[in-house]
Amino acid sequence: MQRNFTLSDSLPFAIGCGILGTGGGGNTYIGRTWLESELRKRGGSVRIIDADQVPDDGYVCCIGTMGAPTVSNEKLQQGDEFVIAMRALEEHIGQPLSAVLCGEIGGANGIKPLICGLQMGLPVVDGDPMGRAFPELQMDTYAINGLSLCPMALSDAHGNVMIFDKMDSPYRVEAYARALTIEMGGSAALAMPLLRGRDMKANIIRDTMTLAQRIGDVVLAERKRGEEPAEAVAAVGNGHVLFRGKIVDVERRTVKGFARGKLKLVGFGDPNDTLEIAFQNENLIAWRNDEIVATVPDLICIIGLEDGEPIGTELLRYGLRVAVLGMPAPKELKTARALNVVGPKAFGYDVPFLPMAGDLL
Amino acid sequence: MQRNFTLSDSLPFAIGCGILGTGGGGNTYIGRTWLESELRKRGGSVRIIDADQVPDDGYVCCIGTMGAPTVSNEKLQQGDEFVIAMRALEEHIGQPLSAVLCGEIGGANGIKPLICGLQMGLPVVDGDPMGRAFPELQMDTYAINGLSLCPMALSDAHGNVMIFDKMDSPYRVEAYARALTIEMGGSAALAMPLLRGRDMKANIIRDTMTLAQRIGDVVLAERKRGEEPAEAVAAVGNGHVLFRGKIVDVERRTVKGFARGKLKLVGFGDPNDTLEIAFQNENLIAWRNDEIVATVPDLICIIGLEDGEPIGTELLRYGLRVAVLGMPAPKELKTARALNVVGPKAFGYDVPFLPMAGDLL
Repeated sequence: MQRNFTLSDSLPFAIGCGILGTGGGGNTYIGRTWLESELRKRGGSVRIIDADQVPDDGYVCCIGTMGAPTVSNEKLQQGDEFVIAMRALEEHIGQPLSAVLCGEIGGANGIKPLICGLQMGLPVVDGDPMGRAFPELQMDTYAINGLSLCPMALSDAHGNVMIFDKMDSPYRVEAYARALTIEMGGSAALAMPLLRGRDMKANIIRDTMTLAQRIGDVVLAERKRGEEPAEAVAAVGNGHVLFRGKIVDVERRTVKGFARGKLKLVGFGDPNDTLEIAFQNENLIAWRNDEIVATVPDLICIIGLEDGEPIGTELLRYGLRVAVLGMPAPKELKTARALNVVGPKAFGYDVPFLPMAGDLL
Repeated sequence: MQRNFTLSDSLPFAIGCGILGTGGGGNTYIGRTWLESELRKRGGSVRIIDADQVPDDGYVCCIGTMGAPTVSNEKLQQGDEFVIAMRALEEHIGQPLSAVLCGEIGGANGIKPLICGLQMGLPVVDGDPMGRAFPELQMDTYAINGLSLCPMALSDAHGNVMIFDKMDSPYRVEAYARALTIEMGGSAALAMPLLRGRDMKANIIRDTMTLAQRIGDVVLAERKRGEEPAEAVAAVGNGHVLFRGKIVDVERRTVKGFARGKLKLVGFGDPNDTLEIAFQNENLIAWRNDEIVATVPDLICIIGLEDGEPIGTELLRYGLRVAVLGMPAPKELKTARALNVVGPKAFGYDVPFLPMAGDLL
């Protein structure tokens, strides 16, 4: 179902992306203000299309920013990085692109495909290959299902663009691109993977842009009603509230291109009731009183207790009063093959995946 | 003047490349045995042509290995890296290459263009853009004279290949390619810069392959006569013997992709007569009894005292009895513009360039 995304969609959509980011994907305030400025500059709307509207032989490509969320709100983008990367790919393959894809719906990376679509005059497909955000490039349904991530393009704020032409594994793409991203100052624009329409359709998780917007709509509606939005928001993603409390400790270091660390919350009322969350850009594992209550790829989302505002990893600080939501991962991330790439062990945690009931959508 | 390079040229040529490497460019024993195996496998000879034999509009490209010499004798190449990088460039620009260029005549990098020429069935141009070896990518006459280093290709031992499509400065090319090279395990195959024949002809330092071979011929002739070859070898490069002595100290660390350090020699007979040499892959500055006697870009070459065998940075060790030769840089490296890029200050030494008399060739 085709629709036009306009200025009034921007706030709820950005809130929803922030929540689906589970901590990562980049600062959505900065992403949203950039999108709004592009919308004002370029006719006020961008077309969102269904995956099936892309021809089987048409070329499509995901875009997003690679880097740590802690960098995303300090090092702003120049503005034309995505277009430079996409044009370099078009030139490299000698074919034009027919639509822009979202590389991850979480955080500012959910918003940036709209910016790129506006800049290139292309529609954006409703869907993404994660249904959330993940820290590493091999962690999407395209790579999980064996599609090549190459050719891909990486560009920096100075107009420099590199094309990864042929690579033997998605893990190598991640390692080499991470080294370049660090050298670029901690963030880089990524156009990847380049796909034929048919491969996109067979692997994309559909309608996640619409889901983000529905989540944001609920946040705004609850705010208007003066209610704490946690329960209602969790319900949109078929999840539940894991915890309510105050952040009492944050350990966070930006190391080797990632924001890594742990945070601790104490429940309201009972100082012995704690929740700890480990993160690598995104929230990965949650322990309540030392017992695991949520595991990646299920979503662990931190929002402001009163306003439902998503709290990215870069914004975590002592004293914030928050609700922690748990939402089940999309079913595409819960196959044995997918769990090898995005389950707890893939992040170095020797614990089983403890799936929440249901699916994100 | 065109000629065929055959198996009997291999030993003297490799010795000459090793001496011109001034410590860097990669281990020539490994380069030479690889070349000899390729010569045996592929018809026994490779054509060396004069720069003027390349058509003005023809495309040519340098190849070489990027990395620290300390890595070059530990991490061998798979063998097809150069061809993979060159073919990726040909595909990227949609044009075939008409000859292989040498990126630096020093060390194994002087030998590898012959291997690549054999593998691709292309001639190799007699010349290079350094007349020696340098540690960083911006340090050649093409970049010094303002030619773009892009598009360039970088490939690893697993067949992975990345194309740097557009880059704003040679220093950025160096920084980004170095980060990738480190991630690749400390060495990478480089195809760069891609040039039109006319740009190559206007900037190449001619006949440096022939010079390398003449140097090696002299070493072998002196060995045969049972003479110490230092004086005769230095004379081929219009230089002189700076010192004779024993290595008594080597500080060498492979750090951020380079072999950096300092070595100390003590003269035969007089223990108070010392020579110290600082290096970054290549020998940069030499102090005799704390007084500077040679500065980059002039060549500081260490050879075995008795056999004239070049001693690369990776081979330096306590107890070696050596001669240190000084040879003047080619005139192309001694313009004000060139000295900004390859003079002592470019390497962080706040000392003036103290040119030796004459030119390398």
